[in-house]
Amino acid sequence: MSAFIDAARGQDAARAPIWIMRQAGRYLPEYREIKERYGFWEMCRTPDLITEITLQPIRRFGMDAAILFSDIMTPLAECGVRIDFAPGPVIAEPVRTREQIARLRTPGSDEIAPYVVKGVRAVREQTEVPLIGFAGAPLTLATYLVEGQGSKDYSLFRNWLYEQPGAAHELLGKLTEVTIAYLRAQIGAGVQAVQLFDSWAGLHDAASYETFGRPYADRVLRALGPGDVPRIYLAIGAHHLYPQIGTLAAEAISVDWRTPLSHARRMLPGKALQGNLDPSALCAPPEVLLERAGEVLRQGLGGPHIFNLGHGIGPSAPVGNVQRLVEFVQGFDRTAAFDLTAEGATR
Amino acid sequence: MSAFIDAARGQDAARAPIWIMRQAGRYLPEYREIKERYGFWEMCRTPDLITEITLQPIRRFGMDAAILFSDIMTPLAECGVRIDFAPGPVIAEPVRTREQIARLRTPGSDEIAPYVVKGVRAVREQTEVPLIGFAGAPLTLATYLVEGQGSKDYSLFRNWLYEQPGAAHELLGKLTEVTIAYLRAQIGAGVQAVQLFDSWAGLHDAASYETFGRPYADRVLRALGPGDVPRIYLAIGAHHLYPQIGTLAAEAISVDWRTPLSHARRMLPGKALQGNLDPSALCAPPEVLLERAGEVLRQGLGGPHIFNLGHGIGPSAPVGNVQRLVEFVQGFDRTAAFDLTAEGATR
Repeated sequence: MSAFIDAARGQDAARAPIWIMRQAGRYLPEYREIKERYGFWEMCRTPDLITEITLQPIRRFGMDAAILFSDIMTPLAECGVRIDFAPGPVIAEPVRTREQIARLRTPGSDEIAPYVVKGVRAVREQTEVPLIGFAGAPLTLATYLVEGQGSKDYSLFRNWLYEQPGAAHELLGKLTEVTIAYLRAQIGAGVQAVQLFDSWAGLHDAASYETFGRPYADRVLRALGPGDVPRIYLAIGAHHLYPQIGTLAAEAISVDWRTPLSHARRMLPGKALQGNLDPSALCAPPEVLLERAGEVLRQGLGGPHIFNLGHGIGPSAPVGNVQRLVEFVQGFDRTAAFDLTAEGATR
Repeated sequence: MSAFIDAARGQDAARAPIWIMRQAGRYLPEYREIKERYGFWEMCRTPDLITEITLQPIRRFGMDAAILFSDIMTPLAECGVRIDFAPGPVIAEPVRTREQIARLRTPGSDEIAPYVVKGVRAVREQTEVPLIGFAGAPLTLATYLVEGQGSKDYSLFRNWLYEQPGAAHELLGKLTEVTIAYLRAQIGAGVQAVQLFDSWAGLHDAASYETFGRPYADRVLRALGPGDVPRIYLAIGAHHLYPQIGTLAAEAISVDWRTPLSHARRMLPGKALQGNLDPSALCAPPEVLLERAGEVLRQGLGGPHIFNLGHGIGPSAPVGNVQRLVEFVQGFDRTAAFDLTAEGATR
């Protein structure tokens, strides 16, 4: 019934569905209008605004999936952490000691973020387009909680993992519980797929990821399936971790703009692939943009592919180019292209 | 005569020389004392301070190479760009238009940064330890010039490359000239090796790096050799670019902490490898630190290896651990370890 759900479940099809990470965001004039009137937390905590913002890009462009408007920090606020946006998340009291970790609340799935639950229900009532829920993965949430703010390389957090591995495992264990509760609440309210954002996993080498990253992400993913909703896992700059990422209990892997999908296909056997146009390509002249999008589509052949950017869309992306991209991808016949490619290969 | 120069020239030896990126830096109490008294630009522009700071880590730890104390922004200031440190570089008027690019000065090697030339000469007079000069690669310098300040993903710069590729090539061409002049000035004054920092190359996919990165870095490297001084090229998070990096006119490649040296060895045939201990491992208890260092040394076998961190040392690295690391690496017998490894492999 849905090209997106089919692809996310691993079905190779004639058309690649498209959605765009951060599609409900600042590049949209109708989003900026709302943002002028409300604070960011207010937007994330008001069911009517969640619903409206989630639906904006679907109405304008007709993507194949909607993604819940929210922020990966949402469940951390539910744990009792004070988070401000300036505009990136800033944590007034970073969580670095066992005492602070012990004080974190772990709300259950029946009590966590009721405004999100209401928002999900309202979106489901208002559209037939499948709705993706999401959460941050434990390692990535811990990155923010410990570091306290954005950073180029999160070295404070990475040092902390070496200094206090015991505390790190306690924190990651608690964040795993909260993330499971949060995603179960979203699924209970009706999201039809989930994406786990492990945005900062790529900062770690394979040994550290195997210790602090993969096991916790995998616990979250396993707690949600299989059979329930398809699960998408995202990590950025994580090319070197693909052998481990390939073992995760996720049906689909979101690939960043630097790893060609044809390469990811070989390294992630059995997974649907999502991605991976360079978000900056949206700033190019239309002919360059569509040429790049065509390359991504051709590299995505040979298995299930959900078209997306390789990272979130930026605020300066021209709306006209987003429209062109959606139309181009939705009009691309993968069957014909695959035949042509196969023919080319045998010549 | 020098284990460092031998390894950088591609000679596989019984001992891996060690130096540490940013070894003249904030983790050292004697550096912080100087920093309390002088502004950062003053430190970079005063030959006596350059000399003193460059020699501090050599005196304390006895590394196998010294690296010039300076900043990759130095030659940009010589082009007429105003740069402040807050503490990362901030460019008051980012360079984004053809007019601004045309106005950039391109000083020759006989006039650029005379304080650096004096500093290099003074260091050479005061130590027998080989001195490494350095510069930022054109793509990385352009990243700062266009973006104007530090960023997580430099998306403004990356968008600009898609929006104004013509202007980008003009800027990169000019920065190539300046970088060649600047490194020739350092070589003329006596540096015995050079490192080209292409710190942000890893943000780009292979096609963008092939267009805007590799050709300019290669022009710089070719203009300096061969035969003159060994050339080391560094990029961070650039695992996906190794097929292209392997073609650069550099004798040695600096590998970040996420790519095992044994993997880099296969992907970069004929190159000496430098690296790649995780800088955060210096914050671990000594036994963990030395275990990790031992792994790096073993992964570095089978070809020339300069031991280093996979990125710069951070301000919170304990001085005692740096001392332990230097002693451990200098006492590691690669011949014995290689025999053991080979023996283990045939069992």
